Amino acid sequence: MTSETTTEHKPTIGATGRKIIYDEDGKPCRSCNTLLDFQMATGKLPISSSSSSKQPPKTIPTPVSNLIEDEYKQDPPDVELLGRSSWTFIHSLCAKYPTQPSNEDKEQISSFFKMLGRMYPCDWCAKDFTKYLQENKLDNSSNEGLNMWLCGAHNAVNKKIGKKEFDCQLWKKRWKDGWD
Amino acid sequence: MTSETTTEHKPTIGATGRKIIYDEDGKPCRSCNTLLDFQMATGKLPISSSSSSKQPPKTIPTPVSNLIEDEYKQDPPDVELLGRSSWTFIHSLCAKYPTQPSNEDKEQISSFFKMLGRMYPCDWCAKDFTKYLQENKLDNSSNEGLNMWLCGAHNAVNKKIGKKEFDCQLWKKRWKDGWD
Repeated sequence: MTSETTTEHKPTIGATGRKIIYDEDGKPCRSCNTLLDFQMATGKLPISSSSSSKQPPKTIPTPVSNLIEDEYKQDPPDVELLGRSSWTFIHSLCAKYPTQPSNEDKEQISSFFKMLGRMYPCDWCAKDFTKYLQENKLDNSSNEGLNMWLCGAHNAVNKKIGKKEFDCQLWKKRWKDGWD
Repeated sequence: MTSETTTEHKPTIGATGRKIIYDEDGKPCRSCNTLLDFQMATGKLPISSSSSSKQPPKTIPTPVSNLIEDEYKQDPPDVELLGRSSWTFIHSLCAKYPTQPSNEDKEQISSFFKMLGRMYPCDWCAKDFTKYLQENKLDNSSNEGLNMWLCGAHNAVNKKIGKKEFDCQLWKKRWKDGWD
């Protein structure tokens, strides 16, 4: 079943200047697009002239659901909120990984990352991550090894989306001990 | 090694009125306490008279690191940011769980929740979750079953920390389809 909103208009480039991702059923993918692009693809935002260009607009309007106060009535997260939340969870999990992990620890953390590559809600992110895992063997041998590996994986994403890379030597300050 | 800040003062009740959780080594646990309570326990905030009472203060000051703009220089998340981030990740993961899961899907999601109960960075949260898992068998049979189970698990936490419970019949609006 395809909803009216997806058949009426199918923009290819969103308000942020990025390509809009559609699911196999033709509906825009909420966890693969920014909220703004998702709202544009579902007809909640007007398709401006800038949407036909790959240049992002200079002023990005505040997404509608950022204004909703009641957290229970919020919409599902877009790709950016999902990304921030997932990195916070994953870095915190790994920051507490043992210095001398047991076999069970090693198996559980390896299974977790394998699962992520299959089940992460943003499909294209999951595929990219699986490719990274294949090319960069997970280091589950120690707390330091795991967190340096994870920092590399995060930086590969930062690089891909044009964000500044993080100095991995500082991982412990950002995710474990704090800055002072 | 115990740092000076933990030996100089060890408040038992934080600025929020909650008990302050310390790790086995005597240091305050960052991922088990709110940022305010953590800052109080590490001497970043003065211990006010309200800290000796279990009543939370009427006005809670803005935590210091909320004011930091550069996301790379942020401190590790406190228990509340970690909780919000983790629920966002877990609900989004489960929202995309298949309607008719394969054996691999079932095994991976079960392993994930088992891992959470052992490795979630907030120790007391992890123990509570393991107890919940033992008393409420995970339903990995379908998308609907898994998400209703997860909603129940989340509500058990909401109840425990005095938050409003969510109407589980609405899980799809909150975590999959949106409200309109």
